Amino acid sequence: MKVVRYPQQEEKADLLSRPVMEATDIMDRVKPILEAVKEKGDTALKEFTERFDRVELTDLEVSYEEFEEAYSLVDQELKEAIQVAYNNIKRFHESQKASTAVVHTMNGVQCWRKSLPIEKVGLYIPGGTAPLFSTILMLGIPASLAGCKERILCTPPGTDGKINSAILYTAQLVGVDKVFKVGGAQAIAAMAYGTESIPQVYKIFGPGNQYVTAAKQAVFQEGTAIDMPAGPSEVMVVADKTAPASFIAADLLAQAEHGIDSQVVLLTTEESLLPKVVAEIEQQLKNLPRADFARQSLANSRAILLKDDETMVEWMNDYAAEHLILSVENDEEWAEKVETAGSVFLGHYSPESIGDYASGTNHTLPTNGYARAYSGVSLDSFVKKVTFQRLSKTGIQTLGPYVEKMAIAENLQAHKNAVSVRLEQLGKEG
Amino acid sequence: MKVVRYPQQEEKADLLSRPVMEATDIMDRVKPILEAVKEKGDTALKEFTERFDRVELTDLEVSYEEFEEAYSLVDQELKEAIQVAYNNIKRFHESQKASTAVVHTMNGVQCWRKSLPIEKVGLYIPGGTAPLFSTILMLGIPASLAGCKERILCTPPGTDGKINSAILYTAQLVGVDKVFKVGGAQAIAAMAYGTESIPQVYKIFGPGNQYVTAAKQAVFQEGTAIDMPAGPSEVMVVADKTAPASFIAADLLAQAEHGIDSQVVLLTTEESLLPKVVAEIEQQLKNLPRADFARQSLANSRAILLKDDETMVEWMNDYAAEHLILSVENDEEWAEKVETAGSVFLGHYSPESIGDYASGTNHTLPTNGYARAYSGVSLDSFVKKVTFQRLSKTGIQTLGPYVEKMAIAENLQAHKNAVSVRLEQLGKEG
Repeated sequence: MKVVRYPQQEEKADLLSRPVMEATDIMDRVKPILEAVKEKGDTALKEFTERFDRVELTDLEVSYEEFEEAYSLVDQELKEAIQVAYNNIKRFHESQKASTAVVHTMNGVQCWRKSLPIEKVGLYIPGGTAPLFSTILMLGIPASLAGCKERILCTPPGTDGKINSAILYTAQLVGVDKVFKVGGAQAIAAMAYGTESIPQVYKIFGPGNQYVTAAKQAVFQEGTAIDMPAGPSEVMVVADKTAPASFIAADLLAQAEHGIDSQVVLLTTEESLLPKVVAEIEQQLKNLPRADFARQSLANSRAILLKDDETMVEWMNDYAAEHLILSVENDEEWAEKVETAGSVFLGHYSPESIGDYASGTNHTLPTNGYARAYSGVSLDSFVKKVTFQRLSKTGIQTLGPYVEKMAIAENLQAHKNAVSVRLEQLGKEG
Repeated sequence: MKVVRYPQQEEKADLLSRPVMEATDIMDRVKPILEAVKEKGDTALKEFTERFDRVELTDLEVSYEEFEEAYSLVDQELKEAIQVAYNNIKRFHESQKASTAVVHTMNGVQCWRKSLPIEKVGLYIPGGTAPLFSTILMLGIPASLAGCKERILCTPPGTDGKINSAILYTAQLVGVDKVFKVGGAQAIAAMAYGTESIPQVYKIFGPGNQYVTAAKQAVFQEGTAIDMPAGPSEVMVVADKTAPASFIAADLLAQAEHGIDSQVVLLTTEESLLPKVVAEIEQQLKNLPRADFARQSLANSRAILLKDDETMVEWMNDYAAEHLILSVENDEEWAEKVETAGSVFLGHYSPESIGDYASGTNHTLPTNGYARAYSGVSLDSFVKKVTFQRLSKTGIQTLGPYVEKMAIAENLQAHKNAVSVRLEQLGKEG
C-alpha cells in the first residue's frame, strides 16, 4: 500500500484515479460468441460450455432433482444465515415500494405514476472459486418484490456439470426457479436473444468477468437493458483518530481480496494511524487464503494523509466510491457531507461485509466513479414507472388553449389540432 | 396508412415491428468529431459551428444581453402558456420527491436511502425548424427540483449566431443560466469531456438527430451517463366505438408530423371506424404545414382491426408504446390492463399533445420498445439514491455471526475477518 503524506492539490486527480480498463480486444472475442448463440441457439451454448467449462451437457436447465439435492446439501447453519439476510434485504427493499398518488396538476387534469414490473429479467451469477449466492439474494429479492413474471438465472457449471448447492438453494428461496447451466458471454447472449431452452429477457443483471461485462455492453447497444456499467470493486475508508487500526486493515483487506484489480483507498488526518494500519495489514494477511490477490491489489492502493476534515470531505466526494466507510466518531455528522457514493457504512461497527451480505442494502453498486450519476440496484431497477394522465372536459377546456399556443410556437400545427378538434367538439356541445 | 383487418397471430410481430435503424456509418463520422473536441476544445467547437451551422462565433456562451433581448421578444401570451405548463410540470415532478425513511431491518441495524442530486447535468436542445422550448421545461424543471448544482444547455445557433428567443426565455425560467451555442455531436462531446468554456457534466439529457444520438451512445460507452437510448417517436391509439374519428385522426397526425420515421399504430375492434379515420386524416392533412413529413411517416404506419378487447390488450402490451392513447369508454378499466408503455393518455379528452406540453408528466419517454425496461425521465433521472447503513454494537453482535458464515461459504475469509475483528474487540470490552 502506497502511503502518501500531505499531497498537493494538483496530485489529487492522479491519486484518486482508477486503474485503466482496456476492453477492445475482449469485445473482438466476445462478438463471435454472441453471433453464434443468436444463430445456433442451444447448440452453440452446449459447444461453448464444452469448450470453456469442459463439460458436455444434455440439458441446460437445472432439474427438479438437482434442486432437491442442493437443498439437502446446504448445512442448516448456512440456511439460517441466508434466511436472516433474506429477511433484512426483503424488509429494506419492500420499503422502496412507491405508492401511486394522483396529482391534480390543475382543475380537471390528473397525473400519476405507476410502478409496473419489468416482465422478464435475467440474473447472471459467476462461477469460479467464490459461489456468489449473496448476489442472488440481492437481485432475486427485488425482482420478486417488483413482480417480474419471468425470472431466470444463468451460471456456469463445474466440470462435473453441476451448480454449487448454495447457489441453487438461494435461487429457490428467492423464487428464481429457472436456472440454466451456462456461463460467460454465451449466457448473456442467450438471455438477450433467447434460445430453444432459455427465454429472452428485457433486462440483465449481475456481475461477471471481462467477457461477461463486454457481452453485457454489446447487448445493451442492441437494446437489452442492463443493471449498470461495470468496473472493479472498490472501497474508500475515511478514518479519524478514534478508528481502530485493526478494523481499518480488515476492511481494506476485505475489498482487496476480491481480485487483483480491486481498489482500496484510505483517507485520514491522523498520522499515527498510518504505520499501525500498515502493520495490521501485514499481520492479517498471514492468515488469508486469498492473500495473493490482496497483495497485488494493495500494491495499487493508497493510504493518504490529509491536512484537515474539509480536505477529506472534498477528496471523498471527488472519488465517488462504490463503498464508503466512515470510520469516524461523528459519523452521523459526516453522513450529511456525503454528496456521492454507492453505499455508505457509518461508524466503527458497520463494516462493508455487513452490507455485502445482510444489513438489508443492496450490494450491486456503481463502481469506477459511476456513483456520480448512477444508483445501486434497488426495487426501482426491476420496475418501470409509467405515467398516466386523464383530462376531463373541463380540464382540456382550461389547459387546451395554452397547449395550442405552445404548439404553434414550436411550429407543430398537428399538435395544436389534436387539442383544437376537441375544443371545437365541446364548443358544439355547448 | 396501411389498414389491416383481422390479422393472424403470426403476423403480430411483423405488424408491430419498428423501422430498423442503422447507425454504423454515422458512428464513423461522429468519432472524429468527438476526438477533435477532446483534443482541441473550444477551437474545435468553433470550427465545427462554422462548418455545420455556417456561423463564425467569438463567444460560445449566450450573454446576459442576449437573455435580456430574448425576454423582450417572447410575446406575453406565450409567456403565460409556458408559465401554466411550468406550474403543472413542477407540481407533478415535486410529487416524485422521495422521503428518507430509516428502516430498522433488525435490532441495531439501520438502513436508509437518500436522494442526492447528480452534481453536473447537461441538456441538449436541437435547433432546426421546431424550437423545442417544451423540452427545456421537461428537463430543466426536474434538474432544478433535484438540486443539480451545475445545469448547462447546448443548442445550435442560427446562421445569425443567435438562439431562438423562446428557448432562451425558457432556459432562464427554469434556472439554466449557462447556455452555449453549440449543436450536434460536438455539443455532446463538449459536455462529456469539458472544454475551456463548457464545463464537463456527469449526465447528458435531451433529444437530437442521428449524429447527436450516436455521440450520446459513444460518450455513454466512455462513462458519461445519458437519459435513455433513443429512437423515433411513436404513438399507439386504442379506440373503441365511442372514439370520435376526428380525434383519432388528429392524434395520429400529431405524431406523424414529427418526422418521416415517426410511427403511428391504431388498434380497434370497431370496423366502421377505419374508413372514417382514413377520411379524416386526408381532410386534416390539407391544412398542415408539415404534411409532407406526416404523409411519409403514415405510409409506414398501420391501422389494425382486431377481433376483441382481449386481443387488443395483448397487442397493446406487446408493442410497448412510447405514447399510448386509450380512446375508449371505460378508460380507467383499460388503464389497469396496461403492463408496459412510456406514458398513457386516458379517455377522449387527453390527447398526447397535452402531455407533450403541459399536463405535468414528462415528455422524454422510452421509444422503440424500450418501455419494456425503461422509464421516462422523472425527478429520479436527476438524482442518485445512495444507501446508508449504521450498526450499533448490539447490531453487529446480532448480525455479525451470520455474515461470518456466509462469507466463509463464499470463500471470502477477509470479508469474515472484517466482522470478526469487531466481535473480538467487543468480546474484550465484555
